[in-house]
Amino acid sequence: MKLTILGCHSATPRINTHPTSQVLEIRNHIFLIDCGEGTQVQLRKNKVKFNRIKHIFISHLHGDHWFGLVGLISTFRLLTRETDLHIHGPKGIKEVITMQMKLADSWTNYKLIFHELTSNTSQLIFEDDKVEVYTIPLDHRVYTNGFLFKEKENERKLLLGAAEDANIDKAYYRKLKQGFDVVNKDGKLIKNDTVTKAGNPPKSYAFCSDTAYSESIVPIIKDVDVLYHESTFLEKLSHLATKTKHSTAKQAATIAKMANVKQLILGHFSTRYDDVSEFIDEASEVFENVDTAKAGKTFEF
Amino acid sequence: MKLTILGCHSATPRINTHPTSQVLEIRNHIFLIDCGEGTQVQLRKNKVKFNRIKHIFISHLHGDHWFGLVGLISTFRLLTRETDLHIHGPKGIKEVITMQMKLADSWTNYKLIFHELTSNTSQLIFEDDKVEVYTIPLDHRVYTNGFLFKEKENERKLLLGAAEDANIDKAYYRKLKQGFDVVNKDGKLIKNDTVTKAGNPPKSYAFCSDTAYSESIVPIIKDVDVLYHESTFLEKLSHLATKTKHSTAKQAATIAKMANVKQLILGHFSTRYDDVSEFIDEASEVFENVDTAKAGKTFEF
Repeated sequence: MKLTILGCHSATPRINTHPTSQVLEIRNHIFLIDCGEGTQVQLRKNKVKFNRIKHIFISHLHGDHWFGLVGLISTFRLLTRETDLHIHGPKGIKEVITMQMKLADSWTNYKLIFHELTSNTSQLIFEDDKVEVYTIPLDHRVYTNGFLFKEKENERKLLLGAAEDANIDKAYYRKLKQGFDVVNKDGKLIKNDTVTKAGNPPKSYAFCSDTAYSESIVPIIKDVDVLYHESTFLEKLSHLATKTKHSTAKQAATIAKMANVKQLILGHFSTRYDDVSEFIDEASEVFENVDTAKAGKTFEF
Repeated sequence: MKLTILGCHSATPRINTHPTSQVLEIRNHIFLIDCGEGTQVQLRKNKVKFNRIKHIFISHLHGDHWFGLVGLISTFRLLTRETDLHIHGPKGIKEVITMQMKLADSWTNYKLIFHELTSNTSQLIFEDDKVEVYTIPLDHRVYTNGFLFKEKENERKLLLGAAEDANIDKAYYRKLKQGFDVVNKDGKLIKNDTVTKAGNPPKSYAFCSDTAYSESIVPIIKDVDVLYHESTFLEKLSHLATKTKHSTAKQAATIAKMANVKQLILGHFSTRYDDVSEFIDEASEVFENVDTAKAGKTFEF
């Protein structure tokens, strides 16, 4: 997986900050997560191919997470896109996007499919043969979901020398990768684990923004490889975090520790902080492997 | 007047282009004209004081002219604005902005007043003691207005020496500036034009975007000091201008000439043009005093 941060600051804009948006590359998919104002330019800057985005996941309908969506949808139309586009987001998103398109007396020349979310428990919202996406119900001022992206189990790796020695017809190699035992050219049953080894362990990524400190998400994000958790504030302003249903760096780290994740990325910083290195200092006291998001930064895992 | 260009390119975004938005300073007003995506950051870059913007004029509801509006309205709220904000724009704008605010479960803590436009003839839409603003009905694919900003007649200038020689009480100086004759300390009537001279001639600015070539606007913009007229294309692509109801540089210059304006500013360039100097070459063949808009550029007149 490769995660590219397009923006990771909270709402009030400054010249060099961008609201929330991320691109996740996972098994040939390019998923866009949230779409604050200016996301289409950030996509251009980071050389993301527009046509490869087929699914957009919107966490909630505060402006800094979706005001760039209608512009992106319109631009796709101007660029004569033909590929279907799926929007996963809170109920209401279809009506308001539709209204904006109608006011411009235009509609897309590609298929625009809305998947409106209303559940307050974690749901499987996308699945194909390689990837699953689940919602992570969050605790914010409006209806909000994080998203859990999971690779499915990888195929087993063929031990080519062993398979040849075992006199197995190449036509069976596909079956072997899928985990089956096969019969060799001499009619003898070959146990799968004698000619293959386990594939790479599947990776997982959890995006959790915006949210108050909420232990109820821990079972859903348990053991993920990478957790992006909002930390709008430092502990000194924890009263503001409580009041606005955001988190502090320490709270994000506490969730990361409880969920036993491998890596924590902090983001959604209030624009009042010029230097975000203090977020790492604060979180590190609770959880070791922590990094901060930054527009243009990529994480590979 | 001082005009600052925040953006002057047509819809499809590139990394270094910005959609339409302008700031007009006129007699202590700061008017915002159109508000494409990213306008709030452009305002910051150009150091425009958010609180001084009390009127926003939206020409039409194609996204590149108003997708930044809801973000700006939201930011004003986050910055705890208390000043009233007036939005002048096509019918429908109130409903769609309201819906977006409702979806975020928020509303402004300042007064947000919509003035929806529906007329197809030029209307006076704002007036105070110093300034008038009129609509300029344009010919585009959706309901569109340009805007004509006119200073009212300036006060006469007092000839201080002459007024003193005429033995006029200072208490009457205000009346003199307003054009009245007054009686001096000796009870003698003093004719106004013997102790004052005409004030600076009032200036005017016409914003015309987006529009097909339309001679019907000529009587409305007659003799303005500065005309901003869209020129999405050069003549080589005039068939696209006709098809999409935009203008070419030559057409914009023709309108400028017919309307006897003093200066023409071209803008709303298609992002297909890397170099816009050709727009000046083409327009100059018809109308001499022509310049091109550029984000961050200011024009004083």
